[in-house]
Amino acid sequence: MTPLVSIIMGSTSDLPVMEKACKFFEEMEIPFELNALSAHRTPDEVSHFARNAHLRGVKVIIAGAGMAAALPGVIAAESPLPVIGVPISGSVLDGIDATFAIMQMPPGIPVATVAINGAQNAAVLAMQIMATGDKTMQQKLIAYKSGLKQKIVKANEELARLQYKFKVDNAQ
Amino acid sequence: MTPLVSIIMGSTSDLPVMEKACKFFEEMEIPFELNALSAHRTPDEVSHFARNAHLRGVKVIIAGAGMAAALPGVIAAESPLPVIGVPISGSVLDGIDATFAIMQMPPGIPVATVAINGAQNAAVLAMQIMATGDKTMQQKLIAYKSGLKQKIVKANEELARLQYKFKVDNAQ
Amino acid sequence: MTPLVSIIMGSTSDLPVMEKACKFFEEMEIPFELNALSAHRTPDEVSHFARNAHLRGVKVIIAGAGMAAALPGVIAAESPLPVIGVPISGSVLDGIDATFAIMQMPPGIPVATVAINGAQNAAVLAMQIMATGDKTMQQKLIAYKSGLKQKIVKANEELARLQYKFKVDNAQ
Amino acid sequence: MTPLVSIIMGSTSDLPVMEKACKFFEEMEIPFELNALSAHRTPDEVSHFARNAHLRGVKVIIAGAGMAAALPGVIAAESPLPVIGVPISGSVLDGIDATFAIMQMPPGIPVATVAINGAQNAAVLAMQIMATGDKTMQQKLIAYKSGLKQKIVKANEELARLQYKFKVDNAQ
Amino acid sequence: MTPLVSIIMGSTSDLPVMEKACKFFEEMEIPFELNALSAHRTPDEVSHFARNAHLRGVKVIIAGAGMAAALPGVIAAESPLPVIGVPISGSVLDGIDATFAIMQMPPGIPVATVAINGAQNAAVLAMQIMATGDKTMQQKLIAYKSGLKQKIVKANEELARLQYKFKVDNAQ
Amino acid sequence: MTPLVSIIMGSTSDLPVMEKACKFFEEMEIPFELNALSAHRTPDEVSHFARNAHLRGVKVIIAGAGMAAALPGVIAAESPLPVIGVPISGSVLDGIDATFAIMQMPPGIPVATVAINGAQNAAVLAMQIMATGDKTMQQKLIAYKSGLKQKIVKANEELARLQYKFKVDNAQ
Amino acid sequence: MTPLVSIIMGSTSDLPVMEKACKFFEEMEIPFELNALSAHRTPDEVSHFARNAHLRGVKVIIAGAGMAAALPGVIAAESPLPVIGVPISGSVLDGIDATFAIMQMPPGIPVATVAINGAQNAAVLAMQIMATGDKTMQQKLIAYKSGLKQKIVKANEELARLQYKFKVDNAQ
Amino acid sequence: MTPLVSIIMGSTSDLPVMEKACKFFEEMEIPFELNALSAHRTPDEVSHFARNAHLRGVKVIIAGAGMAAALPGVIAAESPLPVIGVPISGSVLDGIDATFAIMQMPPGIPVATVAINGAQNAAVLAMQIMATGDKTMQQKLIAYKSGLKQKIVKANEELARLQYKFKVDNAQ
Repeated sequence: MTPLVSIIMGSTSDLPVMEKACKFFEEMEIPFELNALSAHRTPDEVSHFARNAHLRGVKVIIAGAGMAAALPGVIAAESPLPVIGVPISGSVLDGIDATFAIMQMPPGIPVATVAINGAQNAAVLAMQIMATGDKTMQQKLIAYKSGLKQKIVKANEELARLQYKFKVDNAQ
Repeated sequence: MTPLVSIIMGSTSDLPVMEKACKFFEEMEIPFELNALSAHRTPDEVSHFARNAHLRGVKVIIAGAGMAAALPGVIAAESPLPVIGVPISGSVLDGIDATFAIMQMPPGIPVATVAINGAQNAAVLAMQIMATGDKTMQQKLIAYKSGLKQKIVKANEELARLQYKFKVDNAQ
Repeated sequence: MTPLVSIIMGSTSDLPVMEKACKFFEEMEIPFELNALSAHRTPDEVSHFARNAHLRGVKVIIAGAGMAAALPGVIAAESPLPVIGVPISGSVLDGIDATFAIMQMPPGIPVATVAINGAQNAAVLAMQIMATGDKTMQQKLIAYKSGLKQKIVKANEELARLQYKFKVDNAQ
Repeated sequence: MTPLVSIIMGSTSDLPVMEKACKFFEEMEIPFELNALSAHRTPDEVSHFARNAHLRGVKVIIAGAGMAAALPGVIAAESPLPVIGVPISGSVLDGIDATFAIMQMPPGIPVATVAINGAQNAAVLAMQIMATGDKTMQQKLIAYKSGLKQKIVKANEELARLQYKFKVDNAQ
Repeated sequence: MTPLVSIIMGSTSDLPVMEKACKFFEEMEIPFELNALSAHRTPDEVSHFARNAHLRGVKVIIAGAGMAAALPGVIAAESPLPVIGVPISGSVLDGIDATFAIMQMPPGIPVATVAINGAQNAAVLAMQIMATGDKTMQQKLIAYKSGLKQKIVKANEELARLQYKFKVDNAQ
Repeated sequence: MTPLVSIIMGSTSDLPVMEKACKFFEEMEIPFELNALSAHRTPDEVSHFARNAHLRGVKVIIAGAGMAAALPGVIAAESPLPVIGVPISGSVLDGIDATFAIMQMPPGIPVATVAINGAQNAAVLAMQIMATGDKTMQQKLIAYKSGLKQKIVKANEELARLQYKFKVDNAQ
Repeated sequence: MTPLVSIIMGSTSDLPVMEKACKFFEEMEIPFELNALSAHRTPDEVSHFARNAHLRGVKVIIAGAGMAAALPGVIAAESPLPVIGVPISGSVLDGIDATFAIMQMPPGIPVATVAINGAQNAAVLAMQIMATGDKTMQQKLIAYKSGLKQKIVKANEELARLQYKFKVDNAQ
Repeated sequence: MTPLVSIIMGSTSDLPVMEKACKFFEEMEIPFELNALSAHRTPDEVSHFARNAHLRGVKVIIAGAGMAAALPGVIAAESPLPVIGVPISGSVLDGIDATFAIMQMPPGIPVATVAINGAQNAAVLAMQIMATGDKTMQQKLIAYKSGLKQKIVKANEELARLQYKFKVDNAQ
């Protein structure tokens, strides 16, 4: 089984955030790999990884990082693959530092930035990217997105149970 | 009973904030409805809701949303009714993200933004809006606002009980 | 002619921003008044104004203010009318100071905050508020909002004239 | 006993912050008064207070407020006394909103702003202000300030007890 | 010629920023379309566009927006395609408002956010996305990225011409 | 003539801001001195100044500073006089850096912070401080403050001249 | 034993942060001293310390401070030694105030600022500074930095143990 | 002549900022080199540079960068030398993005951050670092720092020439 997506993080303290991506791929039956790499602690490994990922069959890279989050950009510098960056709110600055360090890339080397701690969305985006060349995946995504409204249906059921004298139900 | 105000939220996790609006309407005996809608998960329902609310007799819409809070603006785009937006502090950015996403609307499509998590004030504002055409409501509001000073009276009683040797009472 | 909306500003330096509200009312044929008042320089006049505006037939108050923008909130404290606050970007802080000073009102005394320098939207919102009790105004607003798409039609015509070899036209 | 300083707050929820001022005055044997007033809930009382405080012998006003903190500025508008504003971190914005609402006053009506939640410093500043016309108070302040270095002496004693093999003591 | 990328903006005032994407596609010989759409002014057209783009053969959508930038997220809500959002610095808030409104999307509906005004990078990212299923495009991207170092070579030639007595050349 | 107020700045580039204080004192006939001192460039002179100002008859110190604005706090550390700090917007951070560096003083050593570039208000505050022990000054201040409403009177005259068909005059 | 590094803090409440520097020096067998000093409470001692540290053999000064963090800059003003500043997140502003107060120094008097609460990095930087003249230290640093990758090796071992059906191992 | 300091920048657009470092070294007669390198455009060259600089005799590295400023941190990851980072205000975010991307480094890999655009201070800091092992340099620095007060002397001469009736001269 060849992994289609490579998920990278700089520390296992980022795992509670990044596992949301793993769970999405598991649910969607998309093979992925999961590794720790650091732009500042293992630059050689980062460079080797970035130059070879596309040769191994990887289609998209997801990199989560906090603070002076150089990892997504440094991978993007050496890979032709789309790199999705997840700013992580580990420091006292609540991920604002990581957001700017990931998003504000110079011309020519983009990183696709998602919400702070938004690893699930990074995974959905990765699947949307792969689905541009895969009709089956695109159908699955359409089904997934229409399934999102179930959360709203459930919320409305819950709201309908709230008791107020002046609350009018079945109004919409 | 026709609801005069429609309260919308994107998730039941917003309910602890948004119920402050329900409680105010309950106290003021103003019929309201309460529904979950999402600009990103149920766009059709949002569109249908926004285009029809005024035809059903709704006078004011209150929409609470967090993060990239598109809901209030998207409703405002398709309704002639005043839309009040409540930024909700759900993300690590403490509602600053929702504030900008709700308040910074383009020319022609305003959203009336209240304080972060300020659902009670959204309800007061909704009543002030309806009271522009309803003298009875306006009288009730004048009574409500003059009642707010009771909180200050109580606070002064509490402060008067504090014991300090150099504190002078009955001074003001 | 009785003014339906009262536009207040703290200084004539705010006039270039606030005149966008005047122009909207002129176009919509809604009678308005325009006065300078200051929470910090003419507190008595502010108090007198706030307590009497609704008795004179005013339906909505629009107050523009910069920096420690107390004016909208101080009027809201003494009037039962809806008060719309326009944060003005006069200081080196670009209106962030005024936004917080206007928007973050305590429970019971809301101010309807619009975008920084958003006086035109304040006027549209004022009309939406009055239209909750006036079907003719509501029809005019529906027409106005559907007219907003003309700006997009014009933009598309302009974009269609751009010359690129790989640009495909009439695609959407 | 005539109070020399008037401490004002908008809510007893501000009391844990504002009592640091009371404690300083108690320690310095400076008579003070302590009242709740609100620019938005009791505007008449604020106005009456601000116009009369100097006639009653009050020398300095300390006003603590959170969120859209209009209270210090509104008092400053009607009193010739120096007004010290204490931004309080009650909202999700951690007092940044109150800081701007208190500090960014227009020309002619200053508020002396201290640190967020800095009620003790507001009291020290009040005493420094009164000491400009009172040599005894000035002497007490000089003694107080030189006493502040005791905290550093104690800190050094604590640091000296830390055990590290490569830590050199008595070096400075 | 079928457009592979659809570039959307809300106003022709965004054109100076968004044309950087057009220029990149022109240089790379990638067919694109260019249209104006607004989440707030033409919601029906946005919805129609979002639901049909993938059926017309579009692979990636690039949406630029400023202020309460709802456009990218609203398109992402109804399209299975990857949506790249470009925050535009049109307001006094310099694009911080648009960044949060674009980036902070809820779970399930990602927007790939690039730098403020980073339309060129949006285009590079779009090509990287398409190249995940197209080896020729991937080769072109590898060539493009290695060409970026020419800018550094030129910069070094310019720096080498600077005259300082204590500057040492050819050192690295 | 003994100066009652000492105005300090760190650089003549701060003069356009700080001269607003000079002009106020000139108008109020309050003797002042004007000197350059730097916490970072002339620490000995700062220390000498801070320890002796009150002995020379100075009543209040006004210190303007930008960036890592240590000057007001360092003077406050060694003087029993009230120190007013003026954050100056000289850097790319528009005075936010100076605001925090001046306002966020530790317990025991307050600096009275005014608005960014608010040197005129620093002067008014200095006079309010001196007026706590000087009835004549207090009368002058009351007159000055009531004179501030003239600016509003003038503004209203200017607004009255604006021509709009739907503008109603003499309404308030 | 002569201390090579002097670690300064303004309060023992900073000790949990600053001890990370002590632990690094202990591990590296670099003699250090540890003292409390305050720019605002013990200015004379600060001045004496700053003027003499280099004469006592100290090579680098590390100063941690929170809020209006003047200490590092004031030491830098009077010492020829490199001063490393550690912003401490003690206030409600989470160290943003201290960062600006430490980093934004005027021309001629730099402070080497590290991450908020980054005392360990301050110690590493101090050692890097001393190692510019000491080959043995430089070798130790090279060993230390290459040891940092162990944390990544361990993280990968932990990630390898996670069980997902679609996770591919040994892929990189 | 062997360069002691290596100045790195990512683009010649950074030259107006970074030349302030060159000028300081020229004045101090310290040999330096000046090169363009980019973490994102020339990663191999950056890695080669970082691993070899100390072997060529370089003592300190100064790296200026804007936006997602990865360059200083990536060099610090592979060099045992102290790395000084200069955040550059090139983007619409005025250097806040670069500040966080440079300053918020993870444990073990510090970057010594100076003020936004503070290249002169980077050079002074570099000299302070080298002077820890060089008494002659340290003497030059002591002379340089005491020379900084000349700017204050000149400022005072200029202030003395200002004409105000109530300005008292020779007072301090």
